[in-house]
Amino acid sequence: MADLIHPSAIVSSKAKLGKGVSVGPFSIIYDNVEIGDDTCIGAYCELGLSNAFSDSKHLVIGKDSNIRSHSVFYEGSVFGERLVTGHRVTVREKTMAGKNLQIGTLSDIQGHCTIGDYVRFHSNVHIGQKSTIGNFVWIFPYVVLTNDPHPPSETLIGVTVCDYAAIATMSVILPGAVVAKGVLVGAHSSLKGDTQEGWVYAGSPAKAICPTNKIKMQDGSGRVAYPWTEHFHRGYPEEQVNGWLKK
Amino acid sequence: MADLIHPSAIVSSKAKLGKGVSVGPFSIIYDNVEIGDDTCIGAYCELGLSNAFSDSKHLVIGKDSNIRSHSVFYEGSVFGERLVTGHRVTVREKTMAGKNLQIGTLSDIQGHCTIGDYVRFHSNVHIGQKSTIGNFVWIFPYVVLTNDPHPPSETLIGVTVCDYAAIATMSVILPGAVVAKGVLVGAHSSLKGDTQEGWVYAGSPAKAICPTNKIKMQDGSGRVAYPWTEHFHRGYPEEQVNGWLKK
Amino acid sequence: MADLIHPSAIVSSKAKLGKGVSVGPFSIIYDNVEIGDDTCIGAYCELGLSNAFSDSKHLVIGKDSNIRSHSVFYEGSVFGERLVTGHRVTVREKTMAGKNLQIGTLSDIQGHCTIGDYVRFHSNVHIGQKSTIGNFVWIFPYVVLTNDPHPPSETLIGVTVCDYAAIATMSVILPGAVVAKGVLVGAHSSLKGDTQEGWVYAGSPAKAICPTNKIKMQDGSGRVAYPWTEHFHRGYPEEQVNGWLKK
Repeated sequence: MADLIHPSAIVSSKAKLGKGVSVGPFSIIYDNVEIGDDTCIGAYCELGLSNAFSDSKHLVIGKDSNIRSHSVFYEGSVFGERLVTGHRVTVREKTMAGKNLQIGTLSDIQGHCTIGDYVRFHSNVHIGQKSTIGNFVWIFPYVVLTNDPHPPSETLIGVTVCDYAAIATMSVILPGAVVAKGVLVGAHSSLKGDTQEGWVYAGSPAKAICPTNKIKMQDGSGRVAYPWTEHFHRGYPEEQVNGWLKK
Repeated sequence: MADLIHPSAIVSSKAKLGKGVSVGPFSIIYDNVEIGDDTCIGAYCELGLSNAFSDSKHLVIGKDSNIRSHSVFYEGSVFGERLVTGHRVTVREKTMAGKNLQIGTLSDIQGHCTIGDYVRFHSNVHIGQKSTIGNFVWIFPYVVLTNDPHPPSETLIGVTVCDYAAIATMSVILPGAVVAKGVLVGAHSSLKGDTQEGWVYAGSPAKAICPTNKIKMQDGSGRVAYPWTEHFHRGYPEEQVNGWLKK
Repeated sequence: MADLIHPSAIVSSKAKLGKGVSVGPFSIIYDNVEIGDDTCIGAYCELGLSNAFSDSKHLVIGKDSNIRSHSVFYEGSVFGERLVTGHRVTVREKTMAGKNLQIGTLSDIQGHCTIGDYVRFHSNVHIGQKSTIGNFVWIFPYVVLTNDPHPPSETLIGVTVCDYAAIATMSVILPGAVVAKGVLVGAHSSLKGDTQEGWVYAGSPAKAICPTNKIKMQDGSGRVAYPWTEHFHRGYPEEQVNGWLKK
């Protein structure tokens, strides 16, 4: 196993690495880290940094995960199996995430948040503290989930994003907003308050546009584009595609 | 002291490091660097890079600072004491900053700019060249301070942000705009021209909305949210909280 | 030549490095990489990563290039001579680019795209897959070129940006949009569909505003600001300034 740890990597003897874990060149693993079997850690990663809020709790990364290079994770967060990240992601303490999470390149998870299963963050998303994210959620590049209704203040009111919702690129979700189940937030929008399940919201400030099932695929098939689970299955495990996704 | 420099770090013998300065693994400190006492430099940092505009001037970082991992600073910039950065910040030459500056993760300071005391940049802000920023300013994620009125050109007209102003997430401040004292720019706005002290501006293009003291706290206290100095003191030194902030 | 490779760098014996190529500390060059003469690779760079889509094809970087620190390039992309990058750029497979490309700090090129000659991406741009970018194009900070008309889906419809176009900061170009020759997209815009050559588009959704030659320089000269090639030549080779740019 030792040959899976690059000789230039710095791995604490207190860290717990499962079978088949590989660690790339110049990476650093601190004390309070537990990594599941067959996980791959790229180069220049720093796992298990501590700060004043991490309470010396462990960073736990589930098995079969893939952390790409230049990523930084604090201690005190927990991820289920098959976490996949892009490059240079930053994840702070008290991020509690389910399985099969994807975190795109440059994304910044501020910690103190809850994330369900099969969630996908594309590149460069910013997840503010106190965010609550369901299952099968998609968040696209340069989206910010905020939390402070009158910045700066100590009054943090997190955003809630429900199952199967999708938030398109460069949108801001304002403090306390609820993105309901299956909602699509259009690109470059600014969303406040509550939303209705399965509707499209767009604009700044965002308004209700239509039910998502009014949107047709642009692939010539004539199919309806939402719920997206009807046509998009890439990367989901077979049992999911035949199960939840097909429901 | 030498044991505070990680053996894998590369530190020029010409660099001047104060007492108690620590340098993390795989970091590089070039020649023209002066670091104040008790400053902590994280891993994978590169301090004192030169370019065609840095004129071989020193990078000066004040005492009691904390530069987090993966950060890049060019030579030719000066920071007062207690600079704190997030991860992977980039700071170019001729950035002249006061004390107690905070620069959030992924922020990109383009140099040739002036920054006062007690300023806080949250994650991923972009400070264009020729920006002038006062004291106690807050700039939130994905805000861009621009400078070119008809890009691309050589006509750079910087932005001015006055004391106690706050610019909320994903806003663009257009070239030559002046964010007056105590102004709040709402999220996802695009601001041009002059503004009136202590007012809220929001929208794209941003319009004057109301005086900031019309905004109530959402913490149930019934208090007014602005000036924010009345209720928000986290991280400011005691003497400030009892002094300027209370004025 | 060997003394141009820092001893801490990890360079595959299968990589092909031209004469005068330098590689900074802690950088990694994988097998399928060809780097042209006199190119400079900064610290902490990772060149030639493979993935499921890179088909083991070579990463080719032309001569006289400058890759700044913390950058990540996948194999399977080709760049002409004089590529210049900022820090921490990420470039995925099947990016086919001409000569004299500049890629700003934090930019994220998603691959599977085509880029002409003398193109400049400022900091933190996001180039979606299937983008087609002409020559002498300028893209400013926090611009996103999208591709998915109903996210998430497998229906990717790329953006086209024609010669001499400029897209100002924090704009979203929607799937299938065509930014015509010499068009200026204003800051904080959201552009859909087709555009007319040499016009200004701005707003969200963006509307046609006026021909670009109605915009005057703000340098007191009274000159017209567009086409920008009339007044902006910095960094372009002399033969270009006297040739294409003056046409």
